[in-house]
Amino acid sequence: MLLLIPGPVTTRPEVRQAMTRDIAPWDNDFRHFFTRLRSRVLKLAGGVEGQHATLPLQGCGHFIAEAALRTFLPPGGRILIPATGAYADRMIRLAREAGRVPVPLPMGLTDATDPQAVARALEADPTLTHVAMVYSETGSGVIHDVQAVGAEVRKAGRRMIIDAVSAFGAFPLDLAAQPEVDAAVFTTNKCLEALPGVAFAVARIDRLLDCAGNAGSWSLDLSNVYDHALRSGWGSFRFTPPAQILAALDVALDYHDAEGQTARLARYTANMRIFYDGVRDLGLTPWLPASRQGPVIVNVHAPADPAWNLQAFVDALKPRGVLISNFYNTPSPTFRVGCIGAITPDDMAGAVHAMDQALREIGIKNREAVQT
Amino acid sequence: MLLLIPGPVTTRPEVRQAMTRDIAPWDNDFRHFFTRLRSRVLKLAGGVEGQHATLPLQGCGHFIAEAALRTFLPPGGRILIPATGAYADRMIRLAREAGRVPVPLPMGLTDATDPQAVARALEADPTLTHVAMVYSETGSGVIHDVQAVGAEVRKAGRRMIIDAVSAFGAFPLDLAAQPEVDAAVFTTNKCLEALPGVAFAVARIDRLLDCAGNAGSWSLDLSNVYDHALRSGWGSFRFTPPAQILAALDVALDYHDAEGQTARLARYTANMRIFYDGVRDLGLTPWLPASRQGPVIVNVHAPADPAWNLQAFVDALKPRGVLISNFYNTPSPTFRVGCIGAITPDDMAGAVHAMDQALREIGIKNREAVQT
Repeated sequence: MLLLIPGPVTTRPEVRQAMTRDIAPWDNDFRHFFTRLRSRVLKLAGGVEGQHATLPLQGCGHFIAEAALRTFLPPGGRILIPATGAYADRMIRLAREAGRVPVPLPMGLTDATDPQAVARALEADPTLTHVAMVYSETGSGVIHDVQAVGAEVRKAGRRMIIDAVSAFGAFPLDLAAQPEVDAAVFTTNKCLEALPGVAFAVARIDRLLDCAGNAGSWSLDLSNVYDHALRSGWGSFRFTPPAQILAALDVALDYHDAEGQTARLARYTANMRIFYDGVRDLGLTPWLPASRQGPVIVNVHAPADPAWNLQAFVDALKPRGVLISNFYNTPSPTFRVGCIGAITPDDMAGAVHAMDQALREIGIKNREAVQT
Repeated sequence: MLLLIPGPVTTRPEVRQAMTRDIAPWDNDFRHFFTRLRSRVLKLAGGVEGQHATLPLQGCGHFIAEAALRTFLPPGGRILIPATGAYADRMIRLAREAGRVPVPLPMGLTDATDPQAVARALEADPTLTHVAMVYSETGSGVIHDVQAVGAEVRKAGRRMIIDAVSAFGAFPLDLAAQPEVDAAVFTTNKCLEALPGVAFAVARIDRLLDCAGNAGSWSLDLSNVYDHALRSGWGSFRFTPPAQILAALDVALDYHDAEGQTARLARYTANMRIFYDGVRDLGLTPWLPASRQGPVIVNVHAPADPAWNLQAFVDALKPRGVLISNFYNTPSPTFRVGCIGAITPDDMAGAVHAMDQALREIGIKNREAVQT
């Protein structure tokens, strides 16, 4: 079964197999393992040992995003968030419910974030101490240029939080070259091709120390995570972690090392290209123009045919070995397909073929994009 | 290797094996699985379908405890917490950092919570809307009577939160008979004998509806978890869950069904008795008198011998197949040993034997309790 949902992703059996033993997360053997794992992740983020810390948090991407917002912004702190789509909206909601003040930067949903628009917004409002942005916006499929936006944030003397959840491992991150970044956050289960259950922030140590006391939540306080993981000599988690998920991540990182970030990005890009061109050849219409289409997720317009029913399409694909989401994150009806995970262009060609058959099975004759 | 740390616990290989497949948590098959899993957990908690909801949260016990405190108490809300030990202290810290006002009820660390003391404290302070208490206090090893305390809370017209993290699955919970309880919280990895990674609240639906808007955190808002898991028809998680951990839990619940809660408690009690009597026969001194000793965790006084070194003891036990914690949660030096998990009295007898050998190896001659 191909999981194209797109996350949790399809993983290798060797990665899953790493979860089949009991693990004591307070044991010294685990502490050594965990220290090494933190270093591996730090290196992938382009962080500097002694300047950056790899901070794991039990749970999911939303938890680590809220933790970063709470830790680096005080209550009432104001943060600019380019409105790139569904996942930017989620960050806005996380900030607002946590008592911070998110200020959305309006933009077209199919556009890449304009660094100059960010610069102008920061200049116009000196109370904005931070910018948060989504690197790979799953809501649209657009990849946003965190380096270019970061340069403007740096020039303006502000701070930045990067939501790298569906980017990390495939797209470059060079935190050493981006001192304006307080933290980049991501999880085990997207482009790292491991299983879900642990989230990470790679964060600046000086800022973690400065920001102690901001969080208003012990659970979601990254300064406190830092104290336990690194500063106090404890060298492990504060609270019981899903250690099996970390064991799986370690194996997944071996595969990542073997492939390399650039080759992984190239594979995902090839996956996307085969799929994008393939569904176009089927008569379907991708939601993004090819020039804007990123390699992580492709949204495809729902066909105009009145027989269209997303759940029926999902159900018809499943016996053909392809699993896609039964919901969509775009304003108009689409279906969404992930191109990431332990999958190849051949798998994507197979998925296109399965979609052709599934569309026939559920009686779709008119495959043109639904007019909205 | 026996994990007596005591949590994560030793699990069965069949439980861990359930984690070796990819799972799509938004898929309809998963929704059906998840609905059934929620019902199984609800039944174990003695909840009533339609009155109670089983609410899973990614992460650990501390996260679900904070979520319950945030959801059922408004900011500034006041909650009485019997100071039973290290885990009550943690709940006090979670409440305080979340902007609630925890009011500790002082008591002896080796005492069981006195229901009359709770009643008097509630009578003396009408601003206390809630009581939170730890069912099985890992800090001491004492089991506290949530039914008797709950009866006083009910009489006083107040609300209650039960931290059942290291009790659930072994000790009875009958939420139908305890309408004063807003939520009982616990995790997958203690007496349920599954792997860590997901926490649960079983909570009253009327209270979840009344308390919407309290949490001040989207991540930790149980009213919102309820909306997604049950009310909206979505029938799944809000954010990516560690679905493999839930698959393992489902298998662990099969074993729990086969054994039954009463027999599981009897097995843990037999584990504890063999261990408690065994270490006493070795010349060591358990921290609790036998009359107060619960079956979940036994703390043992550190020997007075100057050669005592907890880490050396832990290291000497490990090649003998026994893993214990290299820290303690009591005010005076102890070592802590869990009696829960997929382990038997024979395993505990083996652990006692291994401890005798380990004490000799690290040169402990005087095994009497250290004077503090």
